[in-house]
Amino acid sequence: MMKHAHIALVTGGARSGKSALAERLVLQQGGGRVYIATAQAFDDEMSQRIQLHKERRDQGWITVEEPVDLVGVLSATDGQGTRLVDCLTLWLSNTMGQADIAALVAVLRQQRDPVVLVTNELGLGIVPDNALARQFRDAHGWMNQAVAEVADEVWMAVCGQPLRIKPAPAGQP
Amino acid sequence: MMKHAHIALVTGGARSGKSALAERLVLQQGGGRVYIATAQAFDDEMSQRIQLHKERRDQGWITVEEPVDLVGVLSATDGQGTRLVDCLTLWLSNTMGQADIAALVAVLRQQRDPVVLVTNELGLGIVPDNALARQFRDAHGWMNQAVAEVADEVWMAVCGQPLRIKPAPAGQP
Amino acid sequence: MMKHAHIALVTGGARSGKSALAERLVLQQGGGRVYIATAQAFDDEMSQRIQLHKERRDQGWITVEEPVDLVGVLSATDGQGTRLVDCLTLWLSNTMGQADIAALVAVLRQQRDPVVLVTNELGLGIVPDNALARQFRDAHGWMNQAVAEVADEVWMAVCGQPLRIKPAPAGQP
Repeated sequence: MMKHAHIALVTGGARSGKSALAERLVLQQGGGRVYIATAQAFDDEMSQRIQLHKERRDQGWITVEEPVDLVGVLSATDGQGTRLVDCLTLWLSNTMGQADIAALVAVLRQQRDPVVLVTNELGLGIVPDNALARQFRDAHGWMNQAVAEVADEVWMAVCGQPLRIKPAPAGQP
Repeated sequence: MMKHAHIALVTGGARSGKSALAERLVLQQGGGRVYIATAQAFDDEMSQRIQLHKERRDQGWITVEEPVDLVGVLSATDGQGTRLVDCLTLWLSNTMGQADIAALVAVLRQQRDPVVLVTNELGLGIVPDNALARQFRDAHGWMNQAVAEVADEVWMAVCGQPLRIKPAPAGQP
Repeated sequence: MMKHAHIALVTGGARSGKSALAERLVLQQGGGRVYIATAQAFDDEMSQRIQLHKERRDQGWITVEEPVDLVGVLSATDGQGTRLVDCLTLWLSNTMGQADIAALVAVLRQQRDPVVLVTNELGLGIVPDNALARQFRDAHGWMNQAVAEVADEVWMAVCGQPLRIKPAPAGQP
Protein backbone atom coordinates (compact mmCIF):
# COMPACT_ATOMS: atom_id res chain seq x y z
CA MET A 1 0.00 0.00 0.00
CA MET A 2 1.33 3.44 -0.91
CA LYS A 3 2.13 5.93 1.79
CA HIS A 4 -0.67 8.51 2.11
CA ALA A 5 0.05 12.21 1.63
CA HIS A 6 1.33 14.33 4.52
CA ILE A 7 -1.18 14.67 7.37
CA ALA A 8 -0.77 17.29 10.14
CA LEU A 9 -2.90 17.86 13.24
CA VAL A 10 -2.90 21.19 15.11
CA THR A 11 -4.39 21.25 18.60
CA GLY A 12 -4.56 23.89 21.31
CA GLY A 13 -6.89 25.97 23.42
CA ALA A 14 -9.34 28.71 22.50
CA ARG A 15 -7.59 31.75 20.94
CA SER A 16 -4.22 29.99 21.06
CA GLY A 17 -3.34 30.63 17.42
CA LYS A 18 -4.26 27.16 16.10
CA SER A 19 -5.80 28.33 12.80
CA ALA A 20 -2.93 30.72 12.01
CA LEU A 21 -0.42 27.93 12.68
CA ALA A 22 -2.44 25.54 10.49
CA GLU A 23 -2.44 28.10 7.67
CA ARG A 24 1.35 28.39 7.89
CA LEU A 25 1.61 24.59 7.62
CA VAL A 26 -0.59 24.66 4.50
CA LEU A 27 1.55 27.38 2.89
CA GLN A 28 4.66 25.25 3.53
CA GLN A 29 3.18 22.51 1.34
CA GLY A 30 2.87 24.80 -1.70
CA GLY A 31 0.33 24.15 -4.50
CA GLY A 32 -3.44 24.60 -4.31
CA ARG A 33 -5.19 25.48 -1.03
CA VAL A 34 -8.67 24.37 0.03
CA TYR A 35 -10.26 25.66 3.24
CA ILE A 36 -12.88 23.24 4.61
CA ALA A 37 -15.02 25.13 7.16
CA THR A 38 -17.11 22.96 9.46
CA ALA A 39 -18.61 25.90 11.37
CA GLN A 40 -22.30 26.71 11.15
CA ALA A 41 -23.17 30.40 11.46
CA PHE A 42 -26.07 29.88 13.88
CA ASP A 43 -25.68 33.20 15.60
CA ASP A 44 -23.90 36.56 15.44
CA GLU A 45 -21.04 35.41 17.65
CA MET A 46 -20.24 32.52 15.33
CA SER A 47 -20.73 34.58 12.15
CA GLN A 48 -18.22 37.07 13.48
CA ARG A 49 -15.66 34.34 14.22
CA ILE A 50 -16.05 32.91 10.71
CA GLN A 51 -15.66 36.40 9.21
CA LEU A 52 -12.44 36.98 11.19
CA HIS A 53 -11.01 33.73 9.87
CA LYS A 54 -11.94 34.62 6.30
CA GLU A 55 -10.30 38.03 6.56
CA ARG A 56 -7.03 36.55 7.74
CA ARG A 57 -6.66 34.20 4.82
CA ASP A 58 -5.32 35.89 1.73
CA GLN A 59 -6.35 35.25 -1.86
CA GLY A 60 -5.71 31.88 -3.40
CA TRP A 61 -7.96 29.70 -1.28
CA ILE A 62 -10.99 27.70 -2.37
CA THR A 63 -13.50 27.64 0.51
CA VAL A 64 -15.88 24.73 1.08
CA GLU A 65 -18.44 24.92 3.90
CA GLU A 66 -19.52 21.48 5.10
CA PRO A 67 -20.64 20.95 8.70
CA VAL A 68 -21.22 17.18 8.59
CA ASP A 69 -19.95 15.25 5.54
CA LEU A 70 -16.25 15.83 6.11
CA VAL A 71 -15.32 12.40 4.77
CA GLY A 72 -17.12 13.08 1.47
CA VAL A 73 -15.49 16.51 1.10
CA LEU A 74 -12.01 15.09 1.70
CA SER A 75 -12.59 12.51 -1.04
CA ALA A 76 -14.07 15.08 -3.42
CA THR A 77 -11.26 17.63 -2.97
CA ASP A 78 -8.32 15.21 -3.17
CA GLY A 79 -6.38 16.45 -6.18
CA GLN A 80 -7.17 20.15 -5.61
CA GLY A 81 -4.24 20.81 -3.25
CA THR A 82 -3.68 20.94 0.51
CA ARG A 83 -6.86 20.90 2.55
CA LEU A 84 -7.22 22.78 5.86
CA VAL A 85 -10.00 21.30 8.01
CA ASP A 86 -11.15 23.95 10.53
CA CYS A 87 -12.14 22.33 12.77
CA LEU A 88 -12.73 18.75 13.99
CA THR A 89 -14.35 19.91 17.24
CA LEU A 90 -17.20 21.66 15.42
CA TRP A 91 -17.58 18.69 13.05
CA LEU A 92 -17.97 16.33 16.02
CA SER A 93 -20.36 18.78 17.65
CA ASN A 94 -22.44 19.10 14.46
CA THR A 95 -22.93 15.32 14.46
CA MET A 96 -23.95 15.34 18.14
CA GLY A 97 -20.83 13.35 18.99
CA GLN A 98 -21.78 10.56 16.54
CA ALA A 99 -19.24 11.34 13.79
CA ASP A 100 -17.73 8.26 12.14
CA ILE A 101 -14.11 8.56 13.30
CA ALA A 102 -13.09 5.26 11.70
CA ALA A 103 -14.30 6.54 8.30
CA LEU A 104 -12.32 9.77 8.81
CA VAL A 105 -9.15 7.83 9.62
CA ALA A 106 -9.72 5.56 6.60
CA VAL A 107 -10.13 8.49 4.19
CA LEU A 108 -7.05 10.22 5.64
CA ARG A 109 -5.01 7.07 4.95
CA GLN A 110 -6.05 7.22 1.26
CA GLN A 111 -5.26 10.89 0.51
CA ARG A 112 -2.86 11.78 -2.29
CA ASP A 113 -2.85 15.51 -1.38
CA PRO A 114 -1.88 16.79 2.08
CA VAL A 115 -4.38 17.58 4.85
CA VAL A 116 -3.93 19.86 7.88
CA LEU A 117 -6.61 19.41 10.55
CA VAL A 118 -7.39 21.78 13.44
CA THR A 119 -8.80 20.48 16.72
CA ASN A 120 -9.05 21.69 20.32
CA GLU A 121 -7.93 20.54 23.72
CA LEU A 122 -11.10 20.30 25.82
CA GLY A 123 -10.02 17.97 28.61
CA LEU A 124 -7.61 20.05 30.69
CA GLY A 125 -10.10 21.81 32.95
CA ILE A 126 -12.18 20.72 35.92
CA VAL A 127 -14.47 17.74 35.16
CA PRO A 128 -17.79 19.14 33.82
CA ASP A 129 -20.86 18.65 36.05
CA ASN A 130 -22.92 17.85 32.98
CA ALA A 131 -23.00 14.19 31.83
CA LEU A 132 -23.54 15.18 28.17
CA ALA A 133 -20.50 17.47 28.33
CA ARG A 134 -18.44 14.60 29.79
CA GLN A 135 -19.59 12.26 27.01
CA PHE A 136 -18.72 14.82 24.35
CA ARG A 137 -15.33 15.42 25.97
CA ASP A 138 -14.64 11.68 25.92
CA ALA A 139 -15.69 11.21 22.28
CA HIS A 140 -13.60 14.25 21.38
CA GLY A 141 -10.55 12.86 23.15
CA TRP A 142 -10.82 9.52 21.34
CA MET A 143 -11.14 11.40 18.04
CA ASN A 144 -8.00 13.44 18.76
CA GLN A 145 -6.05 10.27 19.61
CA ALA A 146 -7.20 8.47 16.44
CA VAL A 147 -6.31 11.38 14.15
CA ALA A 148 -2.97 12.02 15.90
CA GLU A 149 -2.04 8.37 15.38
CA VAL A 150 -2.46 8.59 11.59
CA ALA A 151 -0.86 12.07 11.44
CA ASP A 152 2.78 12.57 10.48
CA GLU A 153 2.97 15.76 12.55
CA VAL A 154 1.09 16.96 15.64
CA TRP A 155 1.50 20.53 16.92
CA MET A 156 0.04 22.28 19.95
CA ALA A 157 -0.41 26.05 19.79
CA VAL A 158 0.42 27.75 23.12
CA CYS A 159 0.10 31.57 23.30
CA GLY A 160 0.34 31.58 19.51
CA GLN A 161 3.63 29.69 19.55
CA PRO A 162 4.04 26.21 18.02
CA LEU A 163 4.98 23.30 20.31
CA ARG A 164 5.86 20.14 18.46
CA ILE A 165 4.25 17.00 19.90
CA LYS A 166 4.91 14.47 17.07
CA PRO A 167 7.47 13.50 16.00
CA ALA A 168 8.63 13.82 19.62
CA PRO A 169 11.41 16.42 20.04
CA ALA A 170 13.06 14.16 22.63
CA GLY A 171 13.17 10.42 23.24
CA GLN A 172 9.84 8.74 23.92
CA PRO A 173 8.68 5.52 25.50
CA MET B 1 20.52 7.24 51.82
CA MET B 2 20.05 4.95 48.83
CA LYS B 3 18.47 6.27 45.67
CA HIS B 4 14.82 5.20 45.46
CA ALA B 5 13.57 3.12 42.52
CA HIS B 6 12.49 4.78 39.30
CA ILE B 7 9.40 7.01 39.69
CA ALA B 8 7.43 8.29 36.69
CA LEU B 9 4.44 10.66 36.61
CA VAL B 10 2.06 10.80 33.63
CA THR B 11 -0.29 13.78 33.37
CA GLY B 12 -2.70 14.98 30.71
CA GLY B 13 -6.31 15.77 30.01
CA ALA B 14 -9.38 13.55 29.88
CA ARG B 15 -9.13 10.88 27.13
CA SER B 16 -5.62 12.00 26.25
CA GLY B 17 -4.08 8.53 26.41
CA LYS B 18 -2.52 8.88 29.88
CA SER B 19 -3.24 5.34 31.07
CA ALA B 20 -2.02 3.71 27.85
CA LEU B 21 1.20 5.73 28.06
CA ALA B 22 1.62 4.76 31.72
CA GLU B 23 1.18 1.09 30.82
CA ARG B 24 3.92 1.37 28.18
CA LEU B 25 6.22 2.89 30.81
CA VAL B 26 5.49 -0.05 33.13
CA LEU B 27 6.24 -2.59 30.39
CA GLN B 28 9.59 -0.85 29.76
CA GLN B 29 10.59 -1.64 33.34
CA GLY B 30 10.16 -5.40 32.89
CA GLY B 31 9.42 -7.75 35.82
CA GLY B 32 6.15 -8.03 37.77
CA ARG B 33 3.27 -5.63 37.19
CA VAL B 34 0.81 -4.39 39.79
CA TYR B 35 -2.17 -2.22 38.83
CA ILE B 36 -3.39 -0.08 41.74
CA ALA B 37 -6.87 1.20 40.91
CA THR B 38 -8.13 4.11 43.01
CA ALA B 39 -11.49 4.36 41.21
CA GLN B 40 -14.72 3.57 42.99
CA ALA B 41 -17.46 2.11 40.79
CA PHE B 42 -20.27 4.29 42.19
CA ASP B 43 -22.31 4.33 39.02
CA ASP B 44 -22.63 2.75 35.58
CA GLU B 45 -20.51 5.43 33.92
CA MET B 46 -17.58 4.75 36.23
CA SER B 47 -18.03 0.94 36.09
CA GLN B 48 -17.81 1.18 32.32
CA ARG B 49 -14.63 3.24 32.45
CA ILE B 50 -13.01 0.76 34.83
CA GLN B 51 -14.04 -2.14 32.58
CA LEU B 52 -12.51 -0.45 29.52
CA HIS B 53 -9.23 -0.02 31.39
CA LYS B 54 -9.27 -3.68 32.47
CA GLU B 55 -9.87 -4.90 28.93
CA ARG B 56 -6.91 -2.97 27.58
CA ARG B 57 -4.43 -4.48 29.98
CA ASP B 58 -3.27 -7.91 28.96
CA GLN B 59 -2.57 -10.84 31.21
CA GLY B 60 0.24 -10.65 33.70
CA TRP B 61 -1.06 -7.92 35.96
CA ILE B 62 -1.98 -8.19 39.62
CA THR B 63 -4.86 -5.76 40.30
CA VAL B 64 -5.36 -4.07 43.68
CA GLU B 65 -8.39 -1.81 44.23
CA GLU B 66 -7.80 0.76 46.95
CA PRO B 67 -9.56 4.13 46.87
CA VAL B 68 -7.97 5.72 49.97
CA ASP B 69 -4.95 3.95 51.52
CA LEU B 70 -2.56 4.42 48.63
CA VAL B 71 0.42 4.86 50.95
CA GLY B 72 -0.27 1.52 52.63
CA VAL B 73 -0.70 -0.28 49.30
CA LEU B 74 2.58 1.12 47.95
CA SER B 75 4.38 -0.17 51.04
CA ALA B 76 2.65 -3.55 50.90
CA THR B 77 3.34 -4.14 47.19
CA ASP B 78 7.00 -3.05 47.16
CA GLY B 79 8.85 -6.18 46.02
CA GLN B 80 6.06 -7.39 43.70
CA GLY B 81 7.22 -5.40 40.65
CA THR B 82 6.36 -2.09 39.00
CA ARG B 83 3.23 -0.46 40.35
CA LEU B 84 0.87 1.59 38.15
CA VAL B 85 -1.22 4.01 40.26
CA ASP B 86 -4.35 4.99 38.27
CA CYS B 87 -4.97 7.66 39.32
CA LEU B 88 -3.95 10.32 41.83
CA THR B 89 -6.90 12.58 40.95
CA LEU B 90 -9.45 9.99 42.08
CA TRP B 91 -7.39 9.22 45.17
CA LEU B 92 -7.43 12.91 46.15
CA SER B 93 -11.13 13.09 45.36
CA ASN B 94 -11.87 9.98 47.45
CA THR B 95 -10.25 11.69 50.46
CA MET B 96 -12.25 14.88 49.86
CA GLY B 97 -9.03 16.72 49.07
CA GLN B 98 -7.50 15.76 52.45
CA ALA B 99 -5.02 13.13 51.22
CA ASP B 100 -1.66 13.15 53.00
CA ILE B 101 0.61 14.27 50.17
CA ALA B 102 3.68 14.40 52.40
CA ALA B 103 3.17 10.74 53.33
CA LEU B 104 2.84 9.82 49.64
CA VAL B 105 6.09 11.63 48.80
CA ALA B 106 7.83 9.95 51.73
CA VAL B 107 6.75 6.44 50.68
CA LEU B 108 7.76 7.13 47.07
CA ARG B 109 11.25 8.09 48.28
CA GLN B 110 11.57 4.68 49.99
CA GLN B 111 10.47 2.40 47.14
CA ARG B 112 12.77 -0.37 45.92
CA ASP B 113 10.52 -1.26 42.95
CA PRO B 114 9.46 1.29 40.32
CA VAL B 115 6.19 3.24 40.43
CA VAL B 116 4.33 4.92 37.55
CA LEU B 117 1.60 7.33 38.66
CA VAL B 118 -1.21 8.77 36.53
CA THR B 119 -2.70 12.20 37.28
CA ASN B 120 -4.72 14.84 35.42
CA GLU B 121 -4.33 18.46 34.43
CA LEU B 122 -7.37 20.23 35.91
CA GLY B 123 -6.23 23.85 35.98
CA LEU B 124 -6.12 24.89 32.33
CA GLY B 125 -9.74 25.93 31.86
CA ILE B 126 -11.77 28.93 32.98
CA VAL B 127 -11.72 29.48 36.78
CA PRO B 128 -14.59 27.45 38.29
CA ASP B 129 -17.47 29.48 39.83
CA ASN B 130 -17.63 27.00 42.67
CA ALA B 131 -15.37 27.64 45.71
CA LEU B 132 -15.12 23.91 46.50
CA ALA B 133 -14.03 23.18 42.93
CA ARG B 134 -11.37 25.91 43.24
CA GLN B 135 -10.11 24.43 46.52
CA PHE B 136 -9.92 20.94 45.01
CA ARG B 137 -8.14 22.32 41.94
CA ASP B 138 -5.59 24.04 44.20
CA ALA B 139 -4.96 20.96 46.37
CA HIS B 140 -4.66 18.88 43.20
CA GLY B 141 -2.12 21.28 41.70
CA TRP B 142 0.03 21.18 44.85
CA MET B 143 -0.13 17.37 44.78
CA ASN B 144 1.00 17.27 41.14
CA GLN B 145 3.93 19.59 41.91
CA ALA B 146 5.03 17.53 44.92
CA VAL B 147 4.93 14.22 43.04
CA ALA B 148 6.63 15.69 39.94
CA GLU B 149 9.45 16.94 42.13
CA VAL B 150 10.25 13.46 43.46
CA ALA B 151 9.69 11.84 40.03
CA ASP B 152 12.59 10.96 37.74
CA GLU B 153 10.37 11.38 34.66
CA VAL B 154 7.25 13.46 33.97
CA TRP B 155 5.25 12.99 30.77
CA MET B 156 2.18 14.79 29.45
CA ALA B 157 -0.12 12.90 27.09
CA VAL B 158 -1.47 15.13 24.28
CA CYS B 159 -3.82 13.53 21.72
CA GLY B 160 -2.38 10.17 22.77
CA GLN B 161 1.19 11.28 22.07
CA PRO B 162 3.86 11.53 24.79
CA LEU B 163 5.36 14.96 25.52
CA ARG B 164 8.36 14.82 27.83
CA ILE B 165 8.31 17.43 30.60
CA LYS B 166 11.07 16.09 32.90
CA PRO B 167 13.94 15.77 32.36
CA ALA B 168 13.49 18.89 30.24
CA PRO B 169 14.17 18.25 26.53
CA ALA B 170 15.80 21.68 26.27
CA GLY B 171 17.66 23.97 28.67
CA GLN B 172 15.75 25.11 31.73
CA PRO B 173 16.04 27.93 34.20
CA MET C 1 15.76 51.17 17.03
CA MET C 2 17.57 49.56 19.95
CA LYS C 3 16.65 46.04 21.03
CA HIS C 4 14.45 46.15 24.11
CA ALA C 5 15.52 44.44 27.33
CA HIS C 6 14.86 40.73 27.88
CA ILE C 7 11.14 39.87 28.10
CA ALA C 8 9.92 36.50 29.40
CA LEU C 9 6.35 35.16 29.59
CA VAL C 10 5.38 32.31 31.93
CA THR C 11 2.05 30.58 31.36
CA GLY C 12 0.40 27.52 32.87
CA GLY C 13 -2.62 26.32 34.78
CA ALA C 14 -3.78 27.02 38.31
CA ARG C 15 -1.25 25.82 40.95
CA SER C 16 1.18 24.73 38.26
CA GLY C 17 4.18 26.57 39.71
CA LYS C 18 4.05 29.59 37.37
CA SER C 19 4.98 32.23 39.96
CA ALA C 20 7.86 30.19 41.40
CA LEU C 21 9.23 29.65 37.89
CA ALA C 22 8.88 33.36 37.13
CA GLU C 23 10.78 34.21 40.32
CA ARG C 24 13.63 31.91 39.27
CA LEU C 25 13.77 33.69 35.91
CA VAL C 26 13.99 37.05 37.69
CA LEU C 27 16.82 35.83 39.94
CA GLN C 28 18.73 34.68 36.83
CA GLN C 29 18.77 38.27 35.59
CA GLY C 30 20.56 39.57 38.68
CA GLY C 31 20.26 43.20 39.83
CA GLY C 32 17.23 44.88 41.43
CA ARG C 33 13.90 43.08 41.71
CA VAL C 34 10.46 44.68 41.52
CA TYR C 35 7.30 42.66 42.13
CA ILE C 36 4.25 44.18 40.42
CA ALA C 37 1.13 42.65 41.96
CA THR C 38 -2.09 43.11 39.98
CA ALA C 39 -4.26 41.19 42.47
CA GLN C 40 -6.96 42.94 44.47
CA ALA C 41 -7.62 41.50 47.90
CA PHE C 42 -11.43 41.53 47.62
CA ASP C 43 -11.98 38.58 49.89
CA ASP C 44 -10.28 36.23 52.33
CA GLU C 45 -9.48 33.66 49.67
CA MET C 46 -7.60 36.20 47.57
CA SER C 47 -5.88 37.80 50.60
CA GLN C 48 -4.61 34.37 51.55
CA ARG C 49 -3.24 33.73 48.06
CA ILE C 50 -1.43 37.09 48.05
CA GLN C 51 0.02 36.36 51.49
CA LEU C 52 1.33 32.97 50.34
CA HIS C 53 3.07 34.62 47.40
CA LYS C 54 4.63 37.27 49.66
CA GLU C 55 5.96 34.64 52.06
CA ARG C 56 7.69 32.74 49.29
CA ARG C 57 9.67 35.71 48.05
CA ASP C 58 12.72 36.45 50.12
CA GLN C 59 14.07 39.84 51.05
CA GLY C 60 15.34 42.12 48.35
CA TRP C 61 12.13 42.81 46.46
CA ILE C 62 10.35 46.10 46.01
CA THR C 63 6.60 45.42 45.84
CA VAL C 64 4.20 47.61 43.86
CA GLU C 65 0.46 46.88 43.95
CA GLU C 66 -1.33 48.17 40.87
CA PRO C 67 -4.48 46.45 39.59
CA VAL C 68 -5.09 48.55 36.46
CA ASP C 69 -2.32 50.94 35.33
CA LEU C 70 0.25 48.29 34.45
CA VAL C 71 1.60 50.31 31.53
CA GLY C 72 2.28 53.30 33.78
CA VAL C 73 3.99 51.14 36.41
CA LEU C 74 6.26 49.50 33.83
CA SER C 75 7.34 52.93 32.61
CA ALA C 76 7.82 54.26 36.12
CA THR C 77 9.89 51.28 37.34
CA ASP C 78 12.18 50.95 34.29
CA GLY C 79 15.64 51.50 35.75
CA GLN C 80 14.88 49.81 39.10
CA GLY C 81 15.73 46.28 37.96
CA THR C 82 13.85 43.24 36.68
CA ARG C 83 10.09 43.50 37.01
CA LEU C 84 7.87 40.47 37.76
CA VAL C 85 4.25 41.11 36.67
CA ASP C 86 1.95 38.72 38.55
CA CYS C 87 -0.31 38.39 36.71
CA LEU C 88 -1.73 39.46 33.35
CA THR C 89 -4.94 37.47 33.86
CA LEU C 90 -5.93 39.50 36.92
CA TRP C 91 -4.93 42.73 35.17
CA LEU C 92 -7.24 41.91 32.25
CA SER C 93 -9.96 40.89 34.68
CA ASN C 94 -9.58 44.15 36.68
CA THR C 95 -10.20 46.12 33.49
CA MET C 96 -13.28 44.01 32.64
CA GLY C 97 -11.49 42.66 29.58
CA GLN C 98 -10.88 46.19 28.21
CA ALA C 99 -7.14 46.44 28.95
CA ASP C 100 -5.12 48.22 26.27
CA ILE C 101 -3.01 45.32 24.99
CA ALA C 102 -1.40 47.42 22.24
CA ALA C 103 -0.16 49.91 24.86
CA LEU C 104 1.27 47.03 26.92
CA VAL C 105 3.12 45.63 23.90
CA ALA C 106 4.42 49.13 23.04
CA VAL C 107 5.77 49.74 26.55
CA LEU C 108 7.39 46.27 26.62
CA ARG C 109 9.21 47.11 23.38
CA GLN C 110 10.70 50.21 25.04
CA GLN C 111 12.01 48.68 28.26
CA ARG C 112 15.66 48.98 29.19
CA ASP C 113 15.35 46.64 32.20
CA PRO C 114 14.02 43.05 31.90
CA VAL C 115 10.40 42.06 32.53
CA VAL C 116 9.00 38.63 33.43
CA LEU C 117 5.21 38.34 33.05
CA VAL C 118 2.95 35.63 34.46
CA THR C 119 -0.27 34.63 32.72
CA ASN C 120 -2.63 31.65 32.69
CA GLU C 121 -3.94 29.14 30.21
CA LEU C 122 -7.74 29.45 30.35
CA GLY C 123 -8.79 27.94 27.04
CA LEU C 124 -8.07 24.23 27.43
CA GLY C 125 -11.30 23.11 29.07
CA ILE C 126 -14.84 22.61 27.83
CA VAL C 127 -16.34 25.74 26.19
CA PRO C 128 -18.00 27.83 28.94
CA ASP C 129 -21.82 28.10 28.79
CA ASN C 130 -21.56 31.75 29.73
CA ALA C 131 -21.14 34.29 26.88
CA LEU C 132 -19.21 36.72 29.12
CA ALA C 133 -16.80 33.94 30.11
CA ARG C 134 -16.28 33.13 26.42
CA GLN C 135 -15.59 36.79 25.61
CA PHE C 136 -13.09 37.06 28.46
CA ARG C 137 -11.43 33.82 27.37
CA ASP C 138 -11.08 35.19 23.84
CA ALA C 139 -9.67 38.56 24.93
CA HIS C 140 -7.28 36.71 27.25
CA GLY C 141 -6.10 34.45 24.43
CA TRP C 142 -5.39 37.41 22.16
CA MET C 143 -3.46 39.07 25.00
CA ASN C 144 -1.34 35.96 25.54
CA GLN C 145 -0.53 35.76 21.83
CA ALA C 146 0.43 39.44 21.62
CA VAL C 147 2.74 39.28 24.66
CA ALA C 148 4.29 35.97 23.57
CA GLU C 149 5.12 37.50 20.20
CA VAL C 150 7.15 40.32 21.76
CA ALA C 151 8.70 37.99 24.37
CA ASP C 152 12.17 36.52 23.94
CA GLU C 153 11.22 33.46 26.03
CA VAL C 154 7.92 31.72 26.70
CA TRP C 155 7.65 28.97 29.32
CA MET C 156 4.74 26.79 30.39
CA ALA C 157 4.72 25.40 33.92
CA VAL C 158 3.39 21.82 34.09
CA CYS C 159 3.27 20.12 37.52
CA GLY C 160 5.81 22.69 38.69
CA GLN C 161 8.25 21.77 35.90
CA PRO C 162 9.30 24.24 33.17
CA LEU C 163 8.43 23.42 29.56
CA ARG C 164 10.08 25.73 27.05
CA ILE C 165 7.74 26.97 24.33
CA LYS C 166 9.85 29.79 22.80
CA PRO C 167 12.45 29.64 21.43
CA ALA C 168 11.13 26.29 20.17
CA PRO C 169 13.22 23.34 21.41
CA ALA C 170 12.76 21.63 18.04
CA GLY C 171 12.21 22.83 14.47
CA GLN C 172 9.11 24.92 13.86
CA PRO C 173 7.02 25.88 10.85
